[in-house]
Amino acid sequence: MPYIKVNMTKGATTEQKAQLIEGITELMVKILDKNPSSTQVHIEEFETDSWGIAGRSVKKLRAEGKTANISKK
Amino acid sequence: MPYIKVNMTKGATTEQKAQLIEGITELMVKILDKNPSSTQVHIEEFETDSWGIAGRSVKKLRAEGKTANISKK
Amino acid sequence: MPYIKVNMTKGATTEQKAQLIEGITELMVKILDKNPSSTQVHIEEFETDSWGIAGRSVKKLRAEGKTANISKK
Amino acid sequence: MPYIKVNMTKGATTEQKAQLIEGITELMVKILDKNPSSTQVHIEEFETDSWGIAGRSVKKLRAEGKTANISKK
Amino acid sequence: MPYIKVNMTKGATTEQKAQLIEGITELMVKILDKNPSSTQVHIEEFETDSWGIAGRSVKKLRAEGKTANISKK
Amino acid sequence: MPYIKVNMTKGATTEQKAQLIEGITELMVKILDKNPSSTQVHIEEFETDSWGIAGRSVKKLRAEGKTANISKK
Repeated sequence: MPYIKVNMTKGATTEQKAQLIEGITELMVKILDKNPSSTQVHIEEFETDSWGIAGRSVKKLRAEGKTANISKK
Repeated sequence: MPYIKVNMTKGATTEQKAQLIEGITELMVKILDKNPSSTQVHIEEFETDSWGIAGRSVKKLRAEGKTANISKK
Repeated sequence: MPYIKVNMTKGATTEQKAQLIEGITELMVKILDKNPSSTQVHIEEFETDSWGIAGRSVKKLRAEGKTANISKK
Repeated sequence: MPYIKVNMTKGATTEQKAQLIEGITELMVKILDKNPSSTQVHIEEFETDSWGIAGRSVKKLRAEGKTANISKK
Repeated sequence: MPYIKVNMTKGATTEQKAQLIEGITELMVKILDKNPSSTQVHIEEFETDSWGIAGRSVKKLRAEGKTANISKK
Repeated sequence: MPYIKVNMTKGATTEQKAQLIEGITELMVKILDKNPSSTQVHIEEFETDSWGIAGRSVKKLRAEGKTANISKK
């Protein structure tokens, strides 16, 4: 029954999403012996002005080069 | 106060969404005696390459005709 | 693939939850022709001091009898 | 570690989102002494036909001028 | 219609939760002119072994005093 | 900034949760080059009467031995 939701900023390719779905499902089976046929992985991507950390949007942090705590792209 | 979130792949019409909002709200009132005026239903739709089951994306499963465990459309 | 999450305050019986799971699944099949075998319904219940509407917790609103916009129980 | 998700209908400007991210982060620090560097605020916006209250979509309620319990825009 | 979900580790008092519900609702009204009567704030609290950052659980990070990027309590 | 939420039925040990947090974070770094210091993994566990598939709760499906599409434990 596991349902895994991945929230991240935009930019992943279809191939990267496929790898993520496969990799997370494998972890659920390997670590927790979950049944893959009911394991769902759901990926959602967001604009960088809709996500903030430490009170500032990722869009601003990237524009200012302050990427020590966030991803560069 | 109930808040119901429906996550599904893209394709529903505005009319189908309206039926879903109405039907789920009726269930909350009928089964649990919830107050409809604070019952919210929220529908979110996703691309088929962003949702996986059994380690593979819905997009791939449909392309291969493997729809025994997923919806055909 | 649909995944439906119901968020509500505590108090439902196991029987009521079973009715909700059945009823919502039927709606997904009837309105949207979804495949029931991959339709998941997930119910989560919360304490009344952890949910607020109009800026006040449900616990307070109930204690004051202000239940016009919320459920009485 | 707090993760705050704001779900609302479409229409906010980038500036309003920035204010929201800043304001909510300040509340988490002030009220709960949370560490801002791991406090994330995530804003998601939806179409008005995908959100319902009292069994009807926001789109319909607005079209009919029934906005006593919802926002006008 | 806004629905705001706050996810954080356990430990807030009922009074702190009430302040959070009030404060976030005020922000939604002030910044976005949202209708408070349909603005819902929902707080959920988790155990420290169920939340991880940088690949390690908050429980472990706190036990080791590595709290530069997380809250101390 | 990624925020990954794992929803599953109860029963994982603290050690298994730690492995899951570590494994998912590694995937995010390896596949998408995400910054681990802002990658959060959040695990939530539910009772088996609060989760349903194909219109029936996991609790009932397990009691009846119908575990072809769900996990056995």
